Amino acid sequence: HTGLKRAEIKPGVREVLMCKDGEGKMGLRVCSINKGVFVSFVYRDSPAAMVGLRFGDQVLQVNGEDVAGWSTEKAMKYLKNCAPTDIRMAVRDRPFERTLTMQKDSTGHVGFVFKDNKITSLVKGSSAARNGLLIDHHMVEVNGQNVVGLKETEIKQLFDGCGRTVTVTIIPSFVYDHMIKSIGSKLVKKHMDHGVPDV
Amino acid sequence: HTGLKRAEIKPGVREVLMCKDGEGKMGLRVCSINKGVFVSFVYRDSPAAMVGLRFGDQVLQVNGEDVAGWSTEKAMKYLKNCAPTDIRMAVRDRPFERTLTMQKDSTGHVGFVFKDNKITSLVKGSSAARNGLLIDHHMVEVNGQNVVGLKETEIKQLFDGCGRTVTVTIIPSFVYDHMIKSIGSKLVKKHMDHGVPDV
Repeated sequence: HTGLKRAEIKPGVREVLMCKDGEGKMGLRVCSINKGVFVSFVYRDSPAAMVGLRFGDQVLQVNGEDVAGWSTEKAMKYLKNCAPTDIRMAVRDRPFERTLTMQKDSTGHVGFVFKDNKITSLVKGSSAARNGLLIDHHMVEVNGQNVVGLKETEIKQLFDGCGRTVTVTIIPSFVYDHMIKSIGSKLVKKHMDHGVPDV
Repeated sequence: HTGLKRAEIKPGVREVLMCKDGEGKMGLRVCSINKGVFVSFVYRDSPAAMVGLRFGDQVLQVNGEDVAGWSTEKAMKYLKNCAPTDIRMAVRDRPFERTLTMQKDSTGHVGFVFKDNKITSLVKGSSAARNGLLIDHHMVEVNGQNVVGLKETEIKQLFDGCGRTVTVTIIPSFVYDHMIKSIGSKLVKKHMDHGVPDV
């Protein structure tokens, strides 16, 4: 039976193996959207960060149990009650997100306006406009670095500090808002993993 | 200048070259979502169908003009007024959609319930649940065939008629509803291209 489940794991789905830290924590929050369970928070330097879990990943199984249909509360309780070692998860790589690559113009801009992480308008004739960036989406990563909960000035520094090519990973705001609502904004600002994953 | 624009065209973006048919039509409807322009309808056997345009594709440029920020009306009017030959479009492959692969169980089911094209619930322990299918999404394709506007019984036949492996392409319902609202449901039911694209 396990063999069958394994065989069904597809490209874009990975298995992670994790242990809780000394305080019995994984450093992970999840939340339920459309009967799926999604990673909504990864604590900096936590076991969840170490295995590369990211904001927006969809958790499919934990220790062989399908989590489809679980509520946020049920999923969080299950994770809390897991034995501290050998926690196995099947994870689908951020199904609601996508990455766009843009080029700075001669003034160093890719051509969009954002407030907090939200894309609010596009500049006519810019690289953002040419590449089909959309408003009503939130930025999740800039050049591979998580920017959820970063200040606008910090995000601007990321744009200024990189070369001509900028990659931006976006998620529809309706999904983002749902995920952020389920966690405190203070937690996100202070403790979110903002590392660059090595993939 | 054109050279620069060309150079920016990325994987996942393709260029199509089209002519209008004898009646001056491309067989294409588009609609504006989040400042992007999306294909909302492809008429069966039309020039648009021939070049492989599909429901949900994002149009980035028409004849070298960026369409970012255009309203539905402006985009439709521009297409209508295009010269009949040599219409060039830069198109991003269906950014809101994704495809899941599922396996039928011994009773021939992949494990979800749908109404019209909308996924309304998942069966516990099924392939759909294991693979992280989501509710509040609409089916756009089944095994590569467009099912937008097909009857439930016709979609069920598609599932019954294929082998053990089923691929389903889904789109969040909030995007689907927006796109369908902009065209008549009669048009979709009678004239939507339901062919299998050769890709």
